[in-house]
Amino acid sequence: MLKDIQNEADGRGVDIQNVGINNVRMPFLIKKEGGGFLSVVADVRFTVSLPKEYKGTHMSRFIEILTEYGQKPLAEEEMAAILDEALLRLDASTAAIKFSFCYFVEKTAPVSGGKALLDVPCFFVGEKQLNAPLKFTLGVDVPYTSLCPCSKEISAFGAHNQRSVCRMRLSFAPEYECIYIEEAVRMVDRTASSPVYSLLKREDEKFVTETAYQNPKFVEDMLRDMVLALRPLPGLKYFFVECENFESIHNHNAIATHEEYL
Amino acid sequence: MLKDIQNEADGRGVDIQNVGINNVRMPFLIKKEGGGFLSVVADVRFTVSLPKEYKGTHMSRFIEILTEYGQKPLAEEEMAAILDEALLRLDASTAAIKFSFCYFVEKTAPVSGGKALLDVPCFFVGEKQLNAPLKFTLGVDVPYTSLCPCSKEISAFGAHNQRSVCRMRLSFAPEYECIYIEEAVRMVDRTASSPVYSLLKREDEKFVTETAYQNPKFVEDMLRDMVLALRPLPGLKYFFVECENFESIHNHNAIATHEEYL
Amino acid sequence: MLKDIQNEADGRGVDIQNVGINNVRMPFLIKKEGGGFLSVVADVRFTVSLPKEYKGTHMSRFIEILTEYGQKPLAEEEMAAILDEALLRLDASTAAIKFSFCYFVEKTAPVSGGKALLDVPCFFVGEKQLNAPLKFTLGVDVPYTSLCPCSKEISAFGAHNQRSVCRMRLSFAPEYECIYIEEAVRMVDRTASSPVYSLLKREDEKFVTETAYQNPKFVEDMLRDMVLALRPLPGLKYFFVECENFESIHNHNAIATHEEYL
Amino acid sequence: MLKDIQNEADGRGVDIQNVGINNVRMPFLIKKEGGGFLSVVADVRFTVSLPKEYKGTHMSRFIEILTEYGQKPLAEEEMAAILDEALLRLDASTAAIKFSFCYFVEKTAPVSGGKALLDVPCFFVGEKQLNAPLKFTLGVDVPYTSLCPCSKEISAFGAHNQRSVCRMRLSFAPEYECIYIEEAVRMVDRTASSPVYSLLKREDEKFVTETAYQNPKFVEDMLRDMVLALRPLPGLKYFFVECENFESIHNHNAIATHEEYL
Repeated sequence: MLKDIQNEADGRGVDIQNVGINNVRMPFLIKKEGGGFLSVVADVRFTVSLPKEYKGTHMSRFIEILTEYGQKPLAEEEMAAILDEALLRLDASTAAIKFSFCYFVEKTAPVSGGKALLDVPCFFVGEKQLNAPLKFTLGVDVPYTSLCPCSKEISAFGAHNQRSVCRMRLSFAPEYECIYIEEAVRMVDRTASSPVYSLLKREDEKFVTETAYQNPKFVEDMLRDMVLALRPLPGLKYFFVECENFESIHNHNAIATHEEYL
Repeated sequence: MLKDIQNEADGRGVDIQNVGINNVRMPFLIKKEGGGFLSVVADVRFTVSLPKEYKGTHMSRFIEILTEYGQKPLAEEEMAAILDEALLRLDASTAAIKFSFCYFVEKTAPVSGGKALLDVPCFFVGEKQLNAPLKFTLGVDVPYTSLCPCSKEISAFGAHNQRSVCRMRLSFAPEYECIYIEEAVRMVDRTASSPVYSLLKREDEKFVTETAYQNPKFVEDMLRDMVLALRPLPGLKYFFVECENFESIHNHNAIATHEEYL
Repeated sequence: MLKDIQNEADGRGVDIQNVGINNVRMPFLIKKEGGGFLSVVADVRFTVSLPKEYKGTHMSRFIEILTEYGQKPLAEEEMAAILDEALLRLDASTAAIKFSFCYFVEKTAPVSGGKALLDVPCFFVGEKQLNAPLKFTLGVDVPYTSLCPCSKEISAFGAHNQRSVCRMRLSFAPEYECIYIEEAVRMVDRTASSPVYSLLKREDEKFVTETAYQNPKFVEDMLRDMVLALRPLPGLKYFFVECENFESIHNHNAIATHEEYL
Repeated sequence: MLKDIQNEADGRGVDIQNVGINNVRMPFLIKKEGGGFLSVVADVRFTVSLPKEYKGTHMSRFIEILTEYGQKPLAEEEMAAILDEALLRLDASTAAIKFSFCYFVEKTAPVSGGKALLDVPCFFVGEKQLNAPLKFTLGVDVPYTSLCPCSKEISAFGAHNQRSVCRMRLSFAPEYECIYIEEAVRMVDRTASSPVYSLLKREDEKFVTETAYQNPKFVEDMLRDMVLALRPLPGLKYFFVECENFESIHNHNAIATHEEYL
């Protein structure tokens, strides 16, 4: 029989906080807001703690667990189950997993009503100990349009505007459900100078141009309005929000971040 | 003595067009337009052809050659010398090298006169056979501002605008000198809705906002104007130009490309 | 009615070779070798030519066409239909599209028989004129293990080995079908020092370690063997192949490329 | 005079933790271990806090401050001065800056003695309040070779090995100096299965191959040995260390992380 080197004793006395696999790409199913699910390609990081007595963990078991879950729509419940399986099969006290993927929401053009998908980079992070509730974090990066209030105020005509992104990380108390990705997108769309869309006909382009011009926002304004929008979410225990404008007049970006424990 | 496996005979009868090293990062010096030089960090790809008789090339010699040239300001003459050394030391009939690096040009704000550096991704490609002239290609990716003519025309106020990039690849006849990176940047600045700057005070921001609004350009307009600007360059034998707008109203880009052999 | 600026006449006399949209991310279905299909997330570039008489193309129509095809399994026939629709709706003489996506193939561990998915970056490129056949190019980037023959020969024990990638671009004559992605992966697996797998148990790890040690290959060997494997493919008109080793003993890579028109 | 919108009052009552600029690329000088300095290209993120009373910060001042420091060799003292200037000129209570850059260390081949540069991605982070000491964090990502103990043990010959990276983030007590990047590289080189080099002749390749085979290390071994090496550093108050192996037998990575407050 082949020797199990990983199972050997280790004499260095160092507990390892996280060990496992990274950059595993696999297709997964994500539950959509209105029912049904979306097939996404996730980049996965999946680790456990390793007590000081053991030389190594068993890397192939992470892949076996992920492979089992490739066909089931994935939400908080399934992430808890994945982590529990890792805790048991790898004899660990803590386990953590991160799924990073591109999600899609359908957007309806504001005047023509044309529909098309918008790509939204997201992640799910889960952390768990045995017999403890799942700590779940949702990450959503929502693109939007920002228009500069200073540029509008001081210029005889026009105002510089640009593609921007609002990155949210949200954790809710265990007894509360996390919001859907679709809701995170709507929060940004309500707050931005204008939402972005994949499909815009001429009448829509007129609408978003004028909307942005009438709603100028500094990166600080967008951040503050997102802070005010996030605070009242039922059960929200922690949020981080970062707004970044890919300035049209510079080759660098304006950025603002804020985090709170509620 | 250690056996030289690479030097062994190969029976498969396949001439290899390019073999060598890739993603070697090293500091190099680049000659500036006004004299002097700039220290850059280059990502290098360096290859030679390998005749069918030989099993392998000698990878360490590429590094030795690059290391020699790390302290000398690099332009077409030095690239020819690097390639000639590769041709001789690796007994090859063709050699090719690509240096990709971030260059910096000083920009002066249009009203305040404040000065700051702007980053410009560039590359130098050289290809050479023994006793033949160097084939040199300059690549420059110049950021600029574009403002949409359609959005301006149809909207009661404002117009969407965004950061954009003009990517040029230029080859000149052997008896002509390639233009400087600084000149490529000026060509884009003269053509764009507005140049971008790293440092803009309020009076400058007013100026670039109004300038862009008065010079609306589709990605097609920018491409055509760059084609017209490039054609008369003395000695230009080939150009490729690509304009890409990071649309402020979408999460995708508008793009246009064109190439010509003159 | 809103003015159609794009439809206006242009006086510069410059035909544009390619104009359209880039970095559009959308889910698509890809036909699998054994029947059925896989849901992937594609990054799309989609362009048409624009005659010198017109000021601009109509960007929203590209999105409309892509949105229609988001639910149909995508292969050569559907790409031809997409391009024909672009040629008609945008009144263009040539159209081109590139779908870049991560595909997955199921791999079976060589001893334990465990199954898991392996990620394979791919692209489909299609180019078309009206009433002409589709020019289709398949791109597949297959990861593999390479083990250095020189290191093995000169060392008392061991040999350096590393993750590597074989990038293929293949075009077939119009009357022939392109190979499936699965077949491209098998070609690399037969040629490499060893295939890579996502799931390997201890008995499998012994197998791949010994297999690689018994099949040492320089990057030049891998390239030549791939050239010999590709040449006899029925109907192949063009291939480009690039092998790159992420050297375990360096922080840079060894690379070799070759292309042929058959 | 142009209105200063940023200076206007804000009624939302939200203090912003960080606002400023991101992805500013500029050349800087970094002090080398043995004296002298190296010219690097840094990607900079530079922010301050903004009290709830103000609508916006003044983005151009960040660029003005960075431009001043572009010509002075940069270490902890200069970072404190940069942050103090931001605190004063932007009337802020906290300021933070991150410089991310590729550094180079000269490595000497173990047998031939050939010298060449190795690229080492690094960052400097500084955070400061007025009249408080600088909090400085050094980040260094050192490439190395890892060889798998399990593969060696169970295989009749050979052992899989691969390029790997050790990412360190180190913070020292204010009265202690941070180590040099060169020392961080030496720590990894002493701990790894083998160091990596840019230039290796055949006799060196034999040496590193045999060295790695005689020093097999799991990602867990490398992490633990780095933890043991870091703990005794004089004045170290915090460290994070992450080891990642780009497995030669998989298309995904093995990873392990650990952090401690001392």
